[in-house]
Amino acid sequence: MYNAIVGQSGGPTAAINATLAGVITAAVESPNIGTLFGAQNGIEGILDNRMLDLGKMFEKDDGSIDLLKLTPAAALGSCRIKLPAIDDKEKSDVYRRIFDRLKENNIGYFFYIGGNDSMDTVDKLSALAEDYGAGYMRFIGVPKTIDNDICETDHTPGYGSAAKYIAATMQSILYDCAVYTVKSVTIVEIMGRDSGWLTCSAAVPRLNGMAPDYVYLPEVPFSTDKFVSDIKKAHKIHPNVVVAVSEGIRFADGRYVGESNQNGATDVFGHKYLAGAGKTLEMIVKNEIGCKVRSFDLSLPQRCASFALSQTDIDESFGVGRFAVEAAIDGESGVFITYVRHESPYRVTYKPIKIDKVANRVKQVPSDFINAEGNNVTDACIDYIVPLISGQPKIEYLNGIPAHYKIK
Amino acid sequence: MYNAIVGQSGGPTAAINATLAGVITAAVESPNIGTLFGAQNGIEGILDNRMLDLGKMFEKDDGSIDLLKLTPAAALGSCRIKLPAIDDKEKSDVYRRIFDRLKENNIGYFFYIGGNDSMDTVDKLSALAEDYGAGYMRFIGVPKTIDNDICETDHTPGYGSAAKYIAATMQSILYDCAVYTVKSVTIVEIMGRDSGWLTCSAAVPRLNGMAPDYVYLPEVPFSTDKFVSDIKKAHKIHPNVVVAVSEGIRFADGRYVGESNQNGATDVFGHKYLAGAGKTLEMIVKNEIGCKVRSFDLSLPQRCASFALSQTDIDESFGVGRFAVEAAIDGESGVFITYVRHESPYRVTYKPIKIDKVANRVKQVPSDFINAEGNNVTDACIDYIVPLISGQPKIEYLNGIPAHYKIK
Repeated sequence: MYNAIVGQSGGPTAAINATLAGVITAAVESPNIGTLFGAQNGIEGILDNRMLDLGKMFEKDDGSIDLLKLTPAAALGSCRIKLPAIDDKEKSDVYRRIFDRLKENNIGYFFYIGGNDSMDTVDKLSALAEDYGAGYMRFIGVPKTIDNDICETDHTPGYGSAAKYIAATMQSILYDCAVYTVKSVTIVEIMGRDSGWLTCSAAVPRLNGMAPDYVYLPEVPFSTDKFVSDIKKAHKIHPNVVVAVSEGIRFADGRYVGESNQNGATDVFGHKYLAGAGKTLEMIVKNEIGCKVRSFDLSLPQRCASFALSQTDIDESFGVGRFAVEAAIDGESGVFITYVRHESPYRVTYKPIKIDKVANRVKQVPSDFINAEGNNVTDACIDYIVPLISGQPKIEYLNGIPAHYKIK
Repeated sequence: MYNAIVGQSGGPTAAINATLAGVITAAVESPNIGTLFGAQNGIEGILDNRMLDLGKMFEKDDGSIDLLKLTPAAALGSCRIKLPAIDDKEKSDVYRRIFDRLKENNIGYFFYIGGNDSMDTVDKLSALAEDYGAGYMRFIGVPKTIDNDICETDHTPGYGSAAKYIAATMQSILYDCAVYTVKSVTIVEIMGRDSGWLTCSAAVPRLNGMAPDYVYLPEVPFSTDKFVSDIKKAHKIHPNVVVAVSEGIRFADGRYVGESNQNGATDVFGHKYLAGAGKTLEMIVKNEIGCKVRSFDLSLPQRCASFALSQTDIDESFGVGRFAVEAAIDGESGVFITYVRHESPYRVTYKPIKIDKVANRVKQVPSDFINAEGNNVTDACIDYIVPLISGQPKIEYLNGIPAHYKIK
């Protein structure tokens, strides 16, 4: 009987530990798996032999797994390592070391929870296993990204909680901005360098009666003139204009809007001042409209806030972790696990897909989710998002803030 | 029997509508009050005759009051009007118009929920009532400010929810930042121009096992050299240094740190680039230490987020609204209502205080809440904050985000 190892990699999300909890639960239950190791800081921990016995750590039924499910970021720690090309003979030493470690620890199952680079890692290890005398090892990727931009899956673990945080925050901002009668523009910048999925979620409050006036996505080329005319139009309806904008919006020529604005601007230390999309729009309003204007971005909390979790996201993220273990035992390898969506009632099932099918591809917001003017999302887009952000887990509080799990 | 009027003024908070709900509940119940009017946009609505019959609006027991209690911002709208000096004869017309409106509507009780300027309004109207033949009118101020910087009260309505949001967000950020092994500094800027109360709350996660390395408050003069040595010291303990900093930190000579950094820096439109405290600290780290560094501020959501409310804050904010009505009926005028704190178990009682006792004074964080080095808060400070952020109200959700009350 082989042992298993699980690692986490890439940027933290609010749901990646739910997936870890799913892997732990299934691996501990399974009669086919010996010890479940946790690699600290992903591949780094395998190379440095920093591995924990997760089975032992969670053997007691003391609520730790439930706490872990609702703990943000990556309990095992993360890394950002891109492995060399599999045919790069000069750099093959890293593969030799990884496979040595895996064999020393009698690993037969390798689970890697992460973003695109992590899927790339799974793909490469799976392709090389035979060469290193480890053809029996099974490598499974479990995607996580708040960006929701992975192809072949309806959505990604972590997106629902980030989208819920953004939708709820935007609703609060809309209420805040509505209190004054002074003409103003408030610009909220949201993560998503290559796709507008997170920014789309800012439109959800529309269903509850308050909505940002415009939603600008990277999928639509940005026009300064159109933006200025949009704002003027909205000011005819009400004084408090609110705009959601993706950090990744670009002009028709491909330049990022957020980078357009740095020529000459330097701070006292001589650093170039990189404004960002929101700040650039703020300056456009200042110059072209001249009313009160402010911009800010939702920054780190949108990916890691642990008090606006989606129950759906947590359940699915846990489920996909469990399924990954079952798939490995069933003989899958070199795959990642996708979500297949079913309607009425909404639910997902899990399906393994060969990783090479999605590598280096980005799923953008489709055109039927974007309105004809290109400055907002359609109701179909909101209908797609709402089930993913629905439900609130029961969070345990300690000293007024959520209680979390921490590996000692 | 006289009618009553209530208005909201100043910056929005997550709890100011709970106070409005308290005023409505008590006024509707009271046999001493006729109609309860709501002034839209505070004094603006009185001058423009935009008044709602709140008693009628909330007469049905349909859950609207409960929804209002948990709705952020100011349901009646707000304004930022500072009334002229009471002896400024040239500008006395505004007082004439206000008192005319109040008399036309047979107002005997005036409730104003707001910050310092709103308390100033109550003070002035109360002082002038006799002159305008309205000596029978009673004027009561109900404070609200997330800044917690009003004297004579243990804390202010709205502070608890903002502090809870900041503490929970900081905890999530700490978990997020801990996942990598790369040396880094993360700087989180928090509101509070004149006092560090909100920034103090970022230290609460210490009780749960994760804490920002340093907390820099406006109460302590900022030293760049000390800051650099602080960061170097923390890097000897762990790679991921996290710092909470108030927007209001200043150098010993009184200059704001956030404004120190604009000489020469302009954008393409020629605007001066005002960096803010966090960005300035980021640049210091870049120059003096050279590791990975990022800074961001918590911006609007810290004052208006409706999904991290403190039950204690909501209950007290509601209670202080109720008490204001009772105090007016008891004959109080020219006062605002303060919180008196009791321990074991923690609770507050309410006490009217003459407004002129607090005008133009700011309550800063006391020295026993700040450590000897001036770069963090003491346990006594955290003990002060925890009861204020405790308890989570049961929030009703609609389409994955909180349901709110909105005046049609």
